[in-house]
Amino acid sequence: MSDEIQQHVDKAYAYAKTFCDEGHVADYIPALAEVDPLKFGMAVALPNGDYCCAGDGDEAFSIQSVSKVFTLALALKCLDDTIWDAVGREPSGSSFNSIVQLETECGKPRNPLINAGAIATTDRLINGGSAEDVVAQILTFMQQRAADPTVYIDDRVATSEAGSGARNRSLAHFMSAFGNLKHPVETSLSAYFCQCALAMSCRQLARAGLFLAFGGKDPVSGERVISAEHCRQINAVMLACGHYDNSGEFAFRVGMPGKSGVGGGILTIAPGRGAIAVWSPGLNQAGTSFVGSIALEHFTRAIGWSIFE
Amino acid sequence: MSDEIQQHVDKAYAYAKTFCDEGHVADYIPALAEVDPLKFGMAVALPNGDYCCAGDGDEAFSIQSVSKVFTLALALKCLDDTIWDAVGREPSGSSFNSIVQLETECGKPRNPLINAGAIATTDRLINGGSAEDVVAQILTFMQQRAADPTVYIDDRVATSEAGSGARNRSLAHFMSAFGNLKHPVETSLSAYFCQCALAMSCRQLARAGLFLAFGGKDPVSGERVISAEHCRQINAVMLACGHYDNSGEFAFRVGMPGKSGVGGGILTIAPGRGAIAVWSPGLNQAGTSFVGSIALEHFTRAIGWSIFE
Amino acid sequence: MSDEIQQHVDKAYAYAKTFCDEGHVADYIPALAEVDPLKFGMAVALPNGDYCCAGDGDEAFSIQSVSKVFTLALALKCLDDTIWDAVGREPSGSSFNSIVQLETECGKPRNPLINAGAIATTDRLINGGSAEDVVAQILTFMQQRAADPTVYIDDRVATSEAGSGARNRSLAHFMSAFGNLKHPVETSLSAYFCQCALAMSCRQLARAGLFLAFGGKDPVSGERVISAEHCRQINAVMLACGHYDNSGEFAFRVGMPGKSGVGGGILTIAPGRGAIAVWSPGLNQAGTSFVGSIALEHFTRAIGWSIFE
Amino acid sequence: MSDEIQQHVDKAYAYAKTFCDEGHVADYIPALAEVDPLKFGMAVALPNGDYCCAGDGDEAFSIQSVSKVFTLALALKCLDDTIWDAVGREPSGSSFNSIVQLETECGKPRNPLINAGAIATTDRLINGGSAEDVVAQILTFMQQRAADPTVYIDDRVATSEAGSGARNRSLAHFMSAFGNLKHPVETSLSAYFCQCALAMSCRQLARAGLFLAFGGKDPVSGERVISAEHCRQINAVMLACGHYDNSGEFAFRVGMPGKSGVGGGILTIAPGRGAIAVWSPGLNQAGTSFVGSIALEHFTRAIGWSIFE
Repeated sequence: MSDEIQQHVDKAYAYAKTFCDEGHVADYIPALAEVDPLKFGMAVALPNGDYCCAGDGDEAFSIQSVSKVFTLALALKCLDDTIWDAVGREPSGSSFNSIVQLETECGKPRNPLINAGAIATTDRLINGGSAEDVVAQILTFMQQRAADPTVYIDDRVATSEAGSGARNRSLAHFMSAFGNLKHPVETSLSAYFCQCALAMSCRQLARAGLFLAFGGKDPVSGERVISAEHCRQINAVMLACGHYDNSGEFAFRVGMPGKSGVGGGILTIAPGRGAIAVWSPGLNQAGTSFVGSIALEHFTRAIGWSIFE
Repeated sequence: MSDEIQQHVDKAYAYAKTFCDEGHVADYIPALAEVDPLKFGMAVALPNGDYCCAGDGDEAFSIQSVSKVFTLALALKCLDDTIWDAVGREPSGSSFNSIVQLETECGKPRNPLINAGAIATTDRLINGGSAEDVVAQILTFMQQRAADPTVYIDDRVATSEAGSGARNRSLAHFMSAFGNLKHPVETSLSAYFCQCALAMSCRQLARAGLFLAFGGKDPVSGERVISAEHCRQINAVMLACGHYDNSGEFAFRVGMPGKSGVGGGILTIAPGRGAIAVWSPGLNQAGTSFVGSIALEHFTRAIGWSIFE
Repeated sequence: MSDEIQQHVDKAYAYAKTFCDEGHVADYIPALAEVDPLKFGMAVALPNGDYCCAGDGDEAFSIQSVSKVFTLALALKCLDDTIWDAVGREPSGSSFNSIVQLETECGKPRNPLINAGAIATTDRLINGGSAEDVVAQILTFMQQRAADPTVYIDDRVATSEAGSGARNRSLAHFMSAFGNLKHPVETSLSAYFCQCALAMSCRQLARAGLFLAFGGKDPVSGERVISAEHCRQINAVMLACGHYDNSGEFAFRVGMPGKSGVGGGILTIAPGRGAIAVWSPGLNQAGTSFVGSIALEHFTRAIGWSIFE
Repeated sequence: MSDEIQQHVDKAYAYAKTFCDEGHVADYIPALAEVDPLKFGMAVALPNGDYCCAGDGDEAFSIQSVSKVFTLALALKCLDDTIWDAVGREPSGSSFNSIVQLETECGKPRNPLINAGAIATTDRLINGGSAEDVVAQILTFMQQRAADPTVYIDDRVATSEAGSGARNRSLAHFMSAFGNLKHPVETSLSAYFCQCALAMSCRQLARAGLFLAFGGKDPVSGERVISAEHCRQINAVMLACGHYDNSGEFAFRVGMPGKSGVGGGILTIAPGRGAIAVWSPGLNQAGTSFVGSIALEHFTRAIGWSIFE
């Protein structure tokens, strides 16, 4: 089984690799703009503990918004349904940092996978504690999920992020004006910027997402991470909202729940089968990895893992 | 197997029935406003030809926007990918008849499951022929899919629809101003109004949707209706866009591709398992059947048919 | 006095003439696209009956949206304040044919000087009669105001307008969906299209607007046309809303109430002094005559007729 | 002359006074919420140095957004046309603190009389200096214009404003994200909050605005404050944009350039005649003084100072 999957990974990798000079590396965070645009990695984590990797699958990159999925998982685990007071679960139909809907919808973000929504989710997770506590909690959660204590937060990226975070500050103050942040703006933002700066490899990221493919239970360790219902809910939100105004396109092409980050990473969940992570820094217009999307589309079609058949 | 499913249907029906006096019957089309608000039916169509029904599952109702799914299937079958020149595949984040995005996006509707998108899809399906031809084609397609020649178009509803269709006319003229209708507005609209007026029972509707749960092939007759890829695509579009600005909520609660209509019907696809149709005229704020949603949520949780686990 | 004004007209004309190859002639109405882009006329009508003209000031052109001012005047005269039930009096901040605000504001146009607002105003003016009656009423009003029975409606332009009026049809049906048209859409539109097709020279147009510069009373004939209060109101609406999303710029540069049309005409009111009409078909991005604006800005600065000093 | 004007002031005051219990005092800034809602003052400043006052015309109140007019005057005086790189001059059609247009228009506010626009204007006025310098410059300017050194900045209000300024912070960070603030957000905001906290009486405010009614020259002292062209421009911007999404209504009813503040003050300019200030804390839905508007409408009609006749 793993052999067959490895072959599909190799083929998808080889096919997508030919597009590696297209797409544009994100340049609004200085530390991200320095990444080699030709990097390209892929990894599939399987329930028996096996991995199928290709290319730069073991090189750490900045997972950026992919972290929003794990913050949501932690928030559901810790706060249960009350998190939905802070954030909705509808596609926004807008770009990742749009502020328009916040004005017409009283400061409540459409979903937890856009910037405003992840800031509000992080804010709730702080829950009266310190930003440092939450960052430590998120880091520990990621190391456990990846079964690898070397997962780390890249302070240089976090600092770069905080230094160029005017748009996120605007979103945070806007929500604060409507009473939808429970902590000082800079407290919530500092925790948010740190989680975006998580550095992981495709292998680690795929492993970390594996519990979402198995009803909230880590199939390797046997540990229940979140309830089966929360797991279904997260996958549903990822499917509908995981790629900003490109979410429909991803569902249409790849046919699985996924979440992209401007660092060029994408995590994709194949329920009952495994988790797939790809990384390539060049982005399409919607901020999703250009080569990564192609690799995922090729892989999922060939192997038949779409949730829609 | 069928027995167990029948039990789940009965339980979901009994539970949801208690909410039958909530929700509001659509009143903007006079002929719909006359329907008994306490009607409630449910039917599951299974690949072996069996059905599990409850309540008013054999009473015909106006399927309204549920027809958009079948028009899309016909359009993909007849026109393949060229249909995506006329219409996108992203959630709109807006209500069913919103015109705002049409202005900022040059007359191209966000997806084929909102009114503007279905009008554009129907327009393309006419393909130089007459509105009557297309209506006949759609009706035949529905009768074949439902394996029942008694499926019909309710002329009274179609006339009522045409007479109160100012908002749809506005959408059509707006697209026409951008060159995104290929036929005279009233031609495309007359075909659109007729398809909305299709009258079917839950049993017929579930049977008609069965091919979408089995890769585009009718599991009872063995006939290939559309390609497996088109089938996956339709399900993806339904999941992301099937309920206007309530699409995320439906994915979150029910966890399957679905399409609602203001007549109170909902068609839901359980890939590899079956198709489910519910009907109850009272709607929630987003225009989806209130009781129908509850029944589907209860049924899918109990039976474990979510595509997200 | 007239001599000095004539000198200012001549200078403004000569200065603006040098820009005559800039700007773009409106091409969305076929009959307008044929006009010679180098045409340029100017006329000032004075209370003593004198005129100061330059260039093509005696050649008839399609006044298009400039007619909206006269329709508003007729509506206030005939219907008084009840017209404000149909239409607001705030700047829209949007382009001439935008539909976005109609959706968020329940089908009530922002003001009577954008297309939707003029359609609603015309609809009210019909007042249960026929479109032909209203067109005749408007034509008679214009001939009287221009003191010239040769003012006419260019049927070729009206027909061209009706044939390419998809966007206006969309606006009309949208308002109709909210109950904000009192007559069938095509009835109101046919009257609207005809008034847009009024053909007048700068001399006739300036003369026709003279009553708005003298408190609603024609200073030449002595006839009271509308009340002083209605006159002030019309000038205020022109100042705030007369040029779509370019209204602020016109107030800033020209400093007088004015109304532009896509035919390239602009009528400007200098309270207590006179009325000025310019015509040059090339438009700026907001649909206002490029050369006409320059001429008006030059003229008003030189002669000191701004209402803001 | 002054006697006749005094009679008109007295009549307008008496008439408007009867509405003093309507309107709502702004409560989003704590220090403003404490003001006695029944306060009502009025003052007209005349070119000969005379004043016509009524009611609480000598009691200082927080002029809030009325200060935006004077900041614009200073900006034009110091920076001339370069200020228009930072801010437009079109009506926004939106409320005072809307952020929607900033997103679609790349961080450039529609005009200098909405919050975002005044923040950008203040930012430019700092011009590399300190916030304190600019605040001192504005205060000196206001004392000179009011011919009264007792004009002051109410530190308690400024502090209250800064403490509840989440929405303004959001606007500032948003503009900063687009590079449209030249100084740190808190620097620009601190100067902005201080100018909003200027405390002046109606008498002082009317006197301060007098130069705008006389071509930029103080008619009492003879001092040229700004150029005649800048003066016309400011009046045009006030007319088109002075009252957010109520600007058209104010022009329609009052017929003069004006600027309102949420403290309940309104400054109105009667070119060639004088300046009028009213103050009453209860606001209408658009944030303009309810009683103040009524007083101005009554006064201007009775005395015939509309610029539109």
